[in-house]
Amino acid sequence: MSPSSAARRDDKADAPAAKPPMRDALVAAAFQLFLERGFEQTTVDDIVALAGVGRRSFFRYFPSKEDVVFPDHERCLADLTDFLSATADEGEPVEPVGRVCDAARLVFDMYAENPTFSVQRYQLTKQVPGLRAYELSVVWRYERALAGYLRERFAGRRDGTLQADVIAAAVVAAHNNALRSWLRSNGRGDAAATVDHALRHVRSAFGGPAVDAPAAYASGSVAEDGDVVVVVTRRGAPLWRVVQELESTLGGPG
Amino acid sequence: MSPSSAARRDDKADAPAAKPPMRDALVAAAFQLFLERGFEQTTVDDIVALAGVGRRSFFRYFPSKEDVVFPDHERCLADLTDFLSATADEGEPVEPVGRVCDAARLVFDMYAENPTFSVQRYQLTKQVPGLRAYELSVVWRYERALAGYLRERFAGRRDGTLQADVIAAAVVAAHNNALRSWLRSNGRGDAAATVDHALRHVRSAFGGPAVDAPAAYASGSVAEDGDVVVVVTRRGAPLWRVVQELESTLGGPG
Repeated sequence: MSPSSAARRDDKADAPAAKPPMRDALVAAAFQLFLERGFEQTTVDDIVALAGVGRRSFFRYFPSKEDVVFPDHERCLADLTDFLSATADEGEPVEPVGRVCDAARLVFDMYAENPTFSVQRYQLTKQVPGLRAYELSVVWRYERALAGYLRERFAGRRDGTLQADVIAAAVVAAHNNALRSWLRSNGRGDAAATVDHALRHVRSAFGGPAVDAPAAYASGSVAEDGDVVVVVTRRGAPLWRVVQELESTLGGPG
Repeated sequence: MSPSSAARRDDKADAPAAKPPMRDALVAAAFQLFLERGFEQTTVDDIVALAGVGRRSFFRYFPSKEDVVFPDHERCLADLTDFLSATADEGEPVEPVGRVCDAARLVFDMYAENPTFSVQRYQLTKQVPGLRAYELSVVWRYERALAGYLRERFAGRRDGTLQADVIAAAVVAAHNNALRSWLRSNGRGDAAATVDHALRHVRSAFGGPAVDAPAAYASGSVAEDGDVVVVVTRRGAPLWRVVQELESTLGGPG
């Protein structure tokens, strides 16, 4: 964990109690063995022997061997749910797509807090189909949490549940695209910039606020006058091209 | 299978050979037992006893008990891959987002061909976490097939892989939203209309062709002149509102 993220964690008034050393010791022992011998070749008995604790201690913290590979997801899912619930209670209007993007950033932060561990897990998950399946079920729970929040916010809209499901899936896909890209850099890339760029892409397609800075309009023309924007486009241009140009004009990256 | 879909299947020049009766008998026996006793309480021995075949016959067709619940996915994944490959080989320009929507429709057709079986499986999958995990891994394979196709098509674009991943996820989410809605109607809803509506939503957001018919523009104004469309909108309006209006103007539902 980097010093800055540790400080940020400590600043949280409702931060959970520090992780028990035994739990950390079990995770460390498990990963040492998974990397040395492989996941399938490592038993829970091997892990507890190396950590110097009993089997019952292992199962007090982790229901299965798979769970020790993802020790922070339950906490992160709880944080994400709390974050979205707090938003719902605030009373003042919140732009929902931006909010689920912020929630996705919480998940990314969990990975970015500990690059070495995240990269090791990425290598392991690629090699073990059972872990890949486990990870898919975790990702699905994140996606349903985001979709559930959006479904409530879009309850009055036509096609509200459809929009909610599509946007949640798009946010998760953008998050995962950024995450894989950062993991493939062995955690050395700029994590925040990578995920922000990816989420901005989704946010501008579905719900981002307009940005005031004008930009060059590549293949059309824009005239600005006070609070009015005029877009001129060839008729017959596909909508995605129009949207792409609008995006780069109103809220392009940067 | 409905008569019309059976006829459509027969029309395919490269249709696979008819399913072996033994395979169908195993699926029928398995579902009879799963519904009577529950999935966990049914063994492979029970299934082969009811079907009147040996254990080895079961494992010739299905690697595991989970696979018999999804007997058509491997064929469907192969059909989807073939469909996208054929597209890639055609040489003439194809609108990629529309094409992955058409590919998703192939998957939906697999469900719609046999409503009773699809609804029974839906009930079963909701109750058995292991089947839910299996289904997630299948969905993930569909999504990667769509994303792989789009990544190739978008190879020259800035953020091509990001766009590909986001669009593939959005298409799958729209497909699944429509599928669940149709399954919850016990397969009695209009399957084609449901999925077309959901996919049109994604297509218009990301890549739908502009539609020529003009429509009323609710909160802005549009002037048309030959091949030019002018959109006037309040500056500061969020991009999603602009896109929503554009969509309803250029290619609204209907």
